[in-house]
Amino acid sequence: MMRCTVYPVVGRSFHKSSISCSPILNFIWQRNSFSISAGACSSNNYKSATDSSPLSGLESVMLEYIFGKKKATQVAHSIWKHVVQKGDIVVDATCGNGYDTLAMVYMVADKSCTGRVYSMDIQETALQNTTSLLDKLLDPDEKEIVDLSIKCHSKMEEVVPRGIMVRLVAFNLGYLPGGDKTIITNSKTTLLGMEAASRIIASGGLISLLVYVGHPGGMEEYKMVEEFASRLPVNEWICCKLQMLNRPLAPIVVLLCKR
Amino acid sequence: MMRCTVYPVVGRSFHKSSISCSPILNFIWQRNSFSISAGACSSNNYKSATDSSPLSGLESVMLEYIFGKKKATQVAHSIWKHVVQKGDIVVDATCGNGYDTLAMVYMVADKSCTGRVYSMDIQETALQNTTSLLDKLLDPDEKEIVDLSIKCHSKMEEVVPRGIMVRLVAFNLGYLPGGDKTIITNSKTTLLGMEAASRIIASGGLISLLVYVGHPGGMEEYKMVEEFASRLPVNEWICCKLQMLNRPLAPIVVLLCKR
Repeated sequence: MMRCTVYPVVGRSFHKSSISCSPILNFIWQRNSFSISAGACSSNNYKSATDSSPLSGLESVMLEYIFGKKKATQVAHSIWKHVVQKGDIVVDATCGNGYDTLAMVYMVADKSCTGRVYSMDIQETALQNTTSLLDKLLDPDEKEIVDLSIKCHSKMEEVVPRGIMVRLVAFNLGYLPGGDKTIITNSKTTLLGMEAASRIIASGGLISLLVYVGHPGGMEEYKMVEEFASRLPVNEWICCKLQMLNRPLAPIVVLLCKR
Repeated sequence: MMRCTVYPVVGRSFHKSSISCSPILNFIWQRNSFSISAGACSSNNYKSATDSSPLSGLESVMLEYIFGKKKATQVAHSIWKHVVQKGDIVVDATCGNGYDTLAMVYMVADKSCTGRVYSMDIQETALQNTTSLLDKLLDPDEKEIVDLSIKCHSKMEEVVPRGIMVRLVAFNLGYLPGGDKTIITNSKTTLLGMEAASRIIASGGLISLLVYVGHPGGMEEYKMVEEFASRLPVNEWICCKLQMLNRPLAPIVVLLCKR
């Protein structure tokens, strides 16, 4: 089991406007609250539209997705890359076979060792597959930043230390690819998971969901996701979806962005 | 009235596999049929995801839209820019106050003078506003490539010369901003317009729709657009939408991409 070093614990009522904490916490807060204001942004990763942006690539990925050449998971990863930076704290709410966790490690790992990936799943098989993948592809110091737990995403707040605000929470709903297709995420716990995610996401952070609707219960779960997103206050959240119109069973990309 | 030079006329049954036409037509065809195959593409504008892509910017625009800093029209323009190239033939199906037509001119105008923008609207006010905008901002040779017609988009095939396949048809549905709000696009003619667009769009081309749902009849029109898109065969078309979830009246971006 990979475990992170202990984090300082503060209450969830911690707000930027009432900072009276240690330099370490202040640092964590500042790194996790990147505001996107017109023409200026404190995130190094979020640039205004200029040709000098070092972050080309998403335009191609979007079009490759639209033109059917990229998978929804690849689109999601590309979007994460434009929100997440080195040293960030992120959550993989459904580690599955580990590919999202792996992608997150590559996004947050750096020499500062402040980056963390809290990764969870309810299935032992998923944790085994993820561990196996990470063992194969990561260096020991990269694996160190992963906190892997057998846990339902509805309980992610038991995994992420109290007071830590995260940049990204990603859900990849449905069943474990290659696993037992009768074990699926369900509307009730996914809703609790989204509620938990909405409490721990930092300003400027992202809740990303890939929702599969081709399996029994999938459409019901999607309706719940959409209903939850539609209720989030517009002054605090921007919620959108990218959906195929002539492939009714294609996964739907849902993005909930905290202002 | 701005008019283009006369184009060669061929039947709509013109297909790449049965080319037996003049070098000019062959040239027009080749420029309008850019196929997107895995790892290779004949369009200069469509690059695979590499940091050397000269086309950065869309990643920022997408995120700025998602984070509420860019308008849907700006997102649409950015997507067009990644499909349209200099010298292309494009259609503004609803010229409105002329901003889309203007953006298209900037995208297709070059010294070859092969680029054309066929622009139309049913309202005289729209044509006057568009003419006024173009007069103000374009050089005479740029204005020359615009063909502005008082015409319903359902009849765009009466404007675009027969046999010409176009790279982009753009619809900006609803009412004329600042104009008579009782004059709106309607489901019946918009459907005919989309059907016409689907007949003249080149392989690799795009039908782009911005659908406003906040006015009476808007949601009905959107449902028709979605229904039309959902019927397009998946082996020939990729149809998707970008939609806000917690702003039910926000415009919906619909993209119909011809494979």
